[in-house]
Amino acid sequence: MLSFAVLSFDEMSTTYALIMAGGIGSRFWPMSTPRHPKQFLDILGTGRTLLQQTYDRMSRVTSPENIMVATHSQYKDLVMDQLPDLPEGNILLEPARRNTAPCIAYASIKIHKMKPGSSIVVTPADHLITEEDDFAKQVEVAIKHTMENNHLITLGVKPLRPETGYGYIQFKDGDENEPIKKVKTFTEKPDLDLAREFIESGEFLWNSGIFIWNTNAILNAFEKHQPDLYQNLIEGWDLYNTDGEQSFIDKSYPSSDNISVDYGILERSKSVYVLPVSFGWSDLGTWGSVYQEMKKDDHENAIQSKRILVNESLNNIISLDKGKTAIISGLDGYIVIAEGNRLLICPREEEQQIKSFVNDLKISLGEEDI
Amino acid sequence: MLSFAVLSFDEMSTTYALIMAGGIGSRFWPMSTPRHPKQFLDILGTGRTLLQQTYDRMSRVTSPENIMVATHSQYKDLVMDQLPDLPEGNILLEPARRNTAPCIAYASIKIHKMKPGSSIVVTPADHLITEEDDFAKQVEVAIKHTMENNHLITLGVKPLRPETGYGYIQFKDGDENEPIKKVKTFTEKPDLDLAREFIESGEFLWNSGIFIWNTNAILNAFEKHQPDLYQNLIEGWDLYNTDGEQSFIDKSYPSSDNISVDYGILERSKSVYVLPVSFGWSDLGTWGSVYQEMKKDDHENAIQSKRILVNESLNNIISLDKGKTAIISGLDGYIVIAEGNRLLICPREEEQQIKSFVNDLKISLGEEDI
Repeated sequence: MLSFAVLSFDEMSTTYALIMAGGIGSRFWPMSTPRHPKQFLDILGTGRTLLQQTYDRMSRVTSPENIMVATHSQYKDLVMDQLPDLPEGNILLEPARRNTAPCIAYASIKIHKMKPGSSIVVTPADHLITEEDDFAKQVEVAIKHTMENNHLITLGVKPLRPETGYGYIQFKDGDENEPIKKVKTFTEKPDLDLAREFIESGEFLWNSGIFIWNTNAILNAFEKHQPDLYQNLIEGWDLYNTDGEQSFIDKSYPSSDNISVDYGILERSKSVYVLPVSFGWSDLGTWGSVYQEMKKDDHENAIQSKRILVNESLNNIISLDKGKTAIISGLDGYIVIAEGNRLLICPREEEQQIKSFVNDLKISLGEEDI
Repeated sequence: MLSFAVLSFDEMSTTYALIMAGGIGSRFWPMSTPRHPKQFLDILGTGRTLLQQTYDRMSRVTSPENIMVATHSQYKDLVMDQLPDLPEGNILLEPARRNTAPCIAYASIKIHKMKPGSSIVVTPADHLITEEDDFAKQVEVAIKHTMENNHLITLGVKPLRPETGYGYIQFKDGDENEPIKKVKTFTEKPDLDLAREFIESGEFLWNSGIFIWNTNAILNAFEKHQPDLYQNLIEGWDLYNTDGEQSFIDKSYPSSDNISVDYGILERSKSVYVLPVSFGWSDLGTWGSVYQEMKKDDHENAIQSKRILVNESLNNIISLDKGKTAIISGLDGYIVIAEGNRLLICPREEEQQIKSFVNDLKISLGEEDI
C-alpha cells in the first residue's frame, strides 16, 4: 500500500500544476471540432467538461493560483469561459502547435523563474479519472518525492486489460517498500499478443501521460537531451513573467522542435521513475475507450439521448445533441454521432480511421473548419 | 398505339382536375413530417415539389382556373405558398382525414353544381411522372372518352417489374382497336410469385390511382354504392360554391365514412374501365421506389448531399439537408436521412416498419409532431 501523504501549506506553495489543453481532438469528430475540441466538451455527460474536471482535480493538490493552463491561443476564450476562477495570467498561450515538449519547457522556465525548484504536476486536460480521492493521495506521494529527488516521475496505471491503444512502461524490481520504481522500458501501442505478455509479466503499467518533477530536474533534462529547444526558450529568461513574455513566446515558440516529452526527454533520461497508481483512469483517447466508461443498455448500446427509438441494434455508441430526435434500426457495433450540422456513422472497429476520414473530407470540401 | 387527342377550348372548359394533397407521408419520416408532408417536398431534388409538379402536369390538360386542390385545412398555407397562381377558392379544405372517397364526393358535387357533367381528372399530389408529354396525350384520350360515356376510368400503368408494393388491375380482352378496356379484377399488393404470374399473363396493370370520369358517372356511383356518404354530403347542395360551403363541410365532412374510392366505388361498380398507359410513373410510395428513381454512384448508393464522405458503403439511400456534413462508413443497404433535428438510420428492407417506428416514438415521447 502507498504511504499517506498530505502536503503542508509551504509544500503547496511550491507545487504547481500544468494542464495541457491545446489538442484538437480530431478522433472525436463530429463531437469535437477544431473550434471546440474534446477537452472543452462534457463527453460523458457528467455536467463538467474534461478541462473543468481536470482543474477540479488539480485544485486538490495545489492552490488555485498555482494552476497553469497551456493552450493554443485560439482557445483562450474557451478556457476563460470554462475556468472563471483561473487568473488570466495563468493561461499560457501557444502561438503554434508543437506537441508536449516545448509546452512543458515553456511552463517549466516560467515557473522556475517564479519559484526555483518548485514541483510541477503535468497533466493532459482531456483524460478521465473517476477515483479523485485516490488520485490526490497518489499524486501527493509523487510530489513529496520530487521535493527531495531530482527524478522525473510518470504515473503508471496498473493495467486492467491488454489494451493495444496505450503506451506501456516497464519498471525495475527494487525495494518493495519504495513505491516509486525506476523505469526500464517504454513501449508504444503493442499488438495484442505483446500486450497480453505485458499484463502477465506484472512488470508493465499504462503510461498515463501525467508527470511529476521539480523544475531543476526537468530543465536540466531539457538542457541535456533537447539543447536546441532549451536554448530557444531560455534565451528570453529576462522576459518571463513580464509584459514581454507573450511577444517573446510568439516569436520563439513556433521555431521549437515539434516533439513529445515522452520521446524527447523520458526515453532518453536515466532519472526516469514511475509510481504505480490506480484511480479509475482512461485517456478517453478513442470512442472505444469512451464506450468502456459509458452506461450500457440491455443490448450493450451506450446511448446519449432521450429522444430516440433504437430497434434491433447492439453494441453501438450513439450520441445526439440536445433537441435531436432519431430512429435507428439494425446497427451492430457502430458509432453514430449527430452534433449540430455534423453526422458520423462508422463501425467501431474503424475508429482509428475517423481522423483520416475527417482530413479527406476537409480536403474535398476545401474547408478547414468542418 | 393510342389515338392522338387534343382537347378543344370548349372541352377544356368542362374538364376539371382534382389534386388530392391531404396525406401525411409518415413512411417518409424524417424528410416528411405531419407539419410538412411528402407532397410539399422536392423529394428527388428536381427544383419543384411533388405538388408543384402535379399542378404543372394538370395545367397541360385543363385551364388553371379548373384545377382544384383538396387538402387538410392545416396545409392551406403550404398550398397557397407553393401554388401562388391557384385561386384561393380552388383549395378544398378537409376538416378531417377521411381517405379518398369523401374527398372525391365533395369535389364532384362542387364541380357538378358549377358545370354539370364535367369531366374530372383525379390525381394524387405525390406521385412521380417523368414523361409529361405522354401523360398529357394519354389523359386526353381518357377525358374525351368520359365526355361521351358514363364510365369510371382508371389509368393502368404497364408493369415494368413484379412489384409487390402496388395494386394490380386485370382487364378483359376486347376490341383491340379500343384503347380503353373493361376491368375484370383488382388485386392489392400481391406476393412475389403472384406478381410474377400477373406480369407473365400480360393482362395486369399497376393501379396508378389516377382516375378520369364525368360528374354524372361518379355521383351516380356514389349514390348507388356509398349512399350514406353521398347523402351526408349532397344534403348541403344549396351551400356549395357559396359562403356557406366551408361551414357545411366543417360540420358534415367529419361524419363521412373513412373509405377509399378504390374499395368504396371501383371494386363495386360495373362501369369501371382502364386505360393502359406508360409515362414513367412511380407512386414514390416507399424509400425503395424513390431509390429506383434516384441517380446512383458506382457503388449503387443514391446520395443527396455534396458535403459527405462515404467509405466502403453500398446500396444505400442517403439524404442530408443543406448545410449538413457527414462521414458514413461501412453501411450496406441502409436508408440514412438527416433532416433538421431528425435522423433516421434503417435497413432498406425494413422500410415498411418506418411508419410504426415513428408511431412508437411519438407515443414514447408523448408528442404528435416529431
